[in-house]
Amino acid sequence: MTNTQVTLFQIDNYGPWTVTPEPRREVDLQTLQSRLYADLSQLVGNRGGYVFFTRFDNMVAVTNGLEDADLELIQESVRNRYPVTLSVATATGTTPAQALVDATELVQDHGSAQDKSRREVLAGRTIASEHRREDDVHIAHFDVVDATGKYTDELDAFETFTHIEQGYASLMRHLYTEYDGLAFFVGGDNVIATVPELTESEYRAAIEHVQADADVELQVGVSSDRTAHEAGMDAKHALEDCRARNTTVEFH
Amino acid sequence: MTNTQVTLFQIDNYGPWTVTPEPRREVDLQTLQSRLYADLSQLVGNRGGYVFFTRFDNMVAVTNGLEDADLELIQESVRNRYPVTLSVATATGTTPAQALVDATELVQDHGSAQDKSRREVLAGRTIASEHRREDDVHIAHFDVVDATGKYTDELDAFETFTHIEQGYASLMRHLYTEYDGLAFFVGGDNVIATVPELTESEYRAAIEHVQADADVELQVGVSSDRTAHEAGMDAKHALEDCRARNTTVEFH
Amino acid sequence: MTNTQVTLFQIDNYGPWTVTPEPRREVDLQTLQSRLYADLSQLVGNRGGYVFFTRFDNMVAVTNGLEDADLELIQESVRNRYPVTLSVATATGTTPAQALVDATELVQDHGSAQDKSRREVLAGRTIASEHRREDDVHIAHFDVVDATGKYTDELDAFETFTHIEQGYASLMRHLYTEYDGLAFFVGGDNVIATVPELTESEYRAAIEHVQADADVELQVGVSSDRTAHEAGMDAKHALEDCRARNTTVEFH
Amino acid sequence: MTNTQVTLFQIDNYGPWTVTPEPRREVDLQTLQSRLYADLSQLVGNRGGYVFFTRFDNMVAVTNGLEDADLELIQESVRNRYPVTLSVATATGTTPAQALVDATELVQDHGSAQDKSRREVLAGRTIASEHRREDDVHIAHFDVVDATGKYTDELDAFETFTHIEQGYASLMRHLYTEYDGLAFFVGGDNVIATVPELTESEYRAAIEHVQADADVELQVGVSSDRTAHEAGMDAKHALEDCRARNTTVEFH
Repeated sequence: MTNTQVTLFQIDNYGPWTVTPEPRREVDLQTLQSRLYADLSQLVGNRGGYVFFTRFDNMVAVTNGLEDADLELIQESVRNRYPVTLSVATATGTTPAQALVDATELVQDHGSAQDKSRREVLAGRTIASEHRREDDVHIAHFDVVDATGKYTDELDAFETFTHIEQGYASLMRHLYTEYDGLAFFVGGDNVIATVPELTESEYRAAIEHVQADADVELQVGVSSDRTAHEAGMDAKHALEDCRARNTTVEFH
Repeated sequence: MTNTQVTLFQIDNYGPWTVTPEPRREVDLQTLQSRLYADLSQLVGNRGGYVFFTRFDNMVAVTNGLEDADLELIQESVRNRYPVTLSVATATGTTPAQALVDATELVQDHGSAQDKSRREVLAGRTIASEHRREDDVHIAHFDVVDATGKYTDELDAFETFTHIEQGYASLMRHLYTEYDGLAFFVGGDNVIATVPELTESEYRAAIEHVQADADVELQVGVSSDRTAHEAGMDAKHALEDCRARNTTVEFH
Repeated sequence: MTNTQVTLFQIDNYGPWTVTPEPRREVDLQTLQSRLYADLSQLVGNRGGYVFFTRFDNMVAVTNGLEDADLELIQESVRNRYPVTLSVATATGTTPAQALVDATELVQDHGSAQDKSRREVLAGRTIASEHRREDDVHIAHFDVVDATGKYTDELDAFETFTHIEQGYASLMRHLYTEYDGLAFFVGGDNVIATVPELTESEYRAAIEHVQADADVELQVGVSSDRTAHEAGMDAKHALEDCRARNTTVEFH
Repeated sequence: MTNTQVTLFQIDNYGPWTVTPEPRREVDLQTLQSRLYADLSQLVGNRGGYVFFTRFDNMVAVTNGLEDADLELIQESVRNRYPVTLSVATATGTTPAQALVDATELVQDHGSAQDKSRREVLAGRTIASEHRREDDVHIAHFDVVDATGKYTDELDAFETFTHIEQGYASLMRHLYTEYDGLAFFVGGDNVIATVPELTESEYRAAIEHVQADADVELQVGVSSDRTAHEAGMDAKHALEDCRARNTTVEFH
């Protein structure tokens, strides 16, 4: 079973803000976005969650372990330190995709992302502690087999980026359409997915699909736990096992 | 003409560092990466350049206006404040893609990205000020027509992300294979490309290609100047004209 | 009663690092120090604690509410993101000063602050949850009566700074020598003190002492609670009462 | 001669903002203040200047080498990334204290620091490049002789802090009243002063004064140059000479 608690963070009315009264310097927007993401990483991550930068103005997080008060504090902390505010919506589901659908609707119900009067929605609910289980969160941590030897040291930086990007896009679509899983690029040659419980052969099929579709060879470490951090740390160890044993899929 | 000065920033031996002696907490890696990107944005951006996060461990920048001493100072500033170091290589070309090929080779010539003894390469040369011209840098700033109305407010956050991501991937491939241009997702529904000089009909063709290939409707503002910041700011104003006039391509 | 849990954060071997192999750029040291302080503020503060920047290379925190594992995680997070490491020692006492004496000794017992081989001491213990009480932490939040009208808008910036600094220094010595309390300047015209339980007349005496000694007129809001954040937030509300009621000492 | 260009950065209407509509979390204020200082350090420092945190809501900088456009860009960059704005005023004088008096007046002339309608003053002028000289800025970098051996490793953290703080306060008053110099604590056991040209015996007198007044033994490295960074880096090297040669005052 999985019981993934997904939170959508959406910057309120961000698009219009970036061009009002005139377009703002791109360097400042990039700095603002990446620091906001870094702060959410710390705020969510130090409570056991994972945040993905996604589009930066809309960020998706796995927040099992965070309570309603934690999310409220995060919203307040951003308001206190940034020129923009955040809407925050949380939903839970046996598939991550369904949880995100529900979380997104909770925000959309309050108005458009570019609605001037919609500010700081705080919607949805976190899982009560008595309903939390040992395997609520399943994390699959993928990377590219010998990315440095095959790509970084051989191709130019944009071609390498393109290859990895295509492998990631293929994996993202496959996990989403086949299993309602959500995969995110997290830098380097790494993709982290929050998924329902999948079998080893399903992971093999995903990896073969990406190989055939995008000619990128992946390996994956998988684990489950009460929080994304705990499941993710075990998944990293499992991925180290792939490297040590020359295997493609490892569970921890 | 264009004369794009491209710099590759590569974190030295980053992959091994992230798992030594054991895998490091993902939250800390994400924070490190996004703050390093934010710092480079400021350091490069306040001298007129643009940095793109690309893979985070390999970042690509348009650095016209920066001199060799600026790049050396950036390398030093990162060494003084982060647990990792940066290799920095710069090349110039009439096409951005060729410049990046050359910059990448300059780094690769000194050893692998995962070579323990290769640290802080500082290679290549910036353009001497007497050779800089008014139209050295061409910037095309794309976004999705009514992304909020069509996607953000209508679909769930992952589907929106997927749509925008596919449009971006299609555009990136098109500009790269047809014109040796480099396009980068910069958050929200925005893509910024550093390109050779292209005609209005070439931009129309690119936009039609993405429409046909990925079913995403783009618009673009284009400008050129001595630096990415100056060209980019004018491109943003041109994009505002697209919105105001309901047009697809505007030059400033 | 008070039962203040005090933590000392000391950067390991920092002095030598700042000049090895050559003196590092002051701008980078200032950035490193202030961002490390900001990160500790978040890491400690979001768990209910208060950190004071003190000397920046030695920071003092009130950490009631943090457990041993939290402090270990903070130490790890700094190691993962900075070029320096932290030693962390925690002690508890009925007076804040005694707690800090004990915490300091725990670090000193492991070697000099400039000992190359002493790294990442993690010493002392946090209070077990069954021993925590409603009034473990007493916080007194002082500011200067009409600092803006009397100083900021009237004197030059250095004279204002000097006045406030002298008032702060006088208060700091008084609370330390009379009551074993620890007071810290926190910016603007604000001083926050962690203190034993004091009476209204003792606060009046402190304020009169500073008036006589440094010719600075203070007011103070006081509260107690299980954590510095909770006590401190109530103390801020009490200080608002001073402003509203034109009083000198208010308890919440 | 000296020709020190001093800039005052003042957060607009900060006090009221911190308590509106209710007192904001102290952790967020501390994070905001220290990150703003870190950003100014980078923005000013990478153009050759030095910023001192002073009261955090009022920061003093030596900005020789920065032009009017740089200061305007810094003001814009803060507006784009923070929930607060900055007023910025610059003046030049043969003594740093006089320059700061003039810069402060330029801000005060536009209204109170807590005036709701006074926002983003940008006042004063930077020195035209043809009037800049090789010795415009004199920097004296002080530290405490064997601070680690005498204090950090021997006393508790607050006593050490108190000692260093008293030495600093004594030095600050002496340099200000005797020579119109401005001295600032910059962390650890370091004080950086921007001063008129002083003789070796004047530095010796200052150090003897602090020894007698506060029982703290200082040493100092001194240099001058076109910018604070250049003068300051040479002063650091001079201070290294003090350590190596066991001397009290060294010029570079």
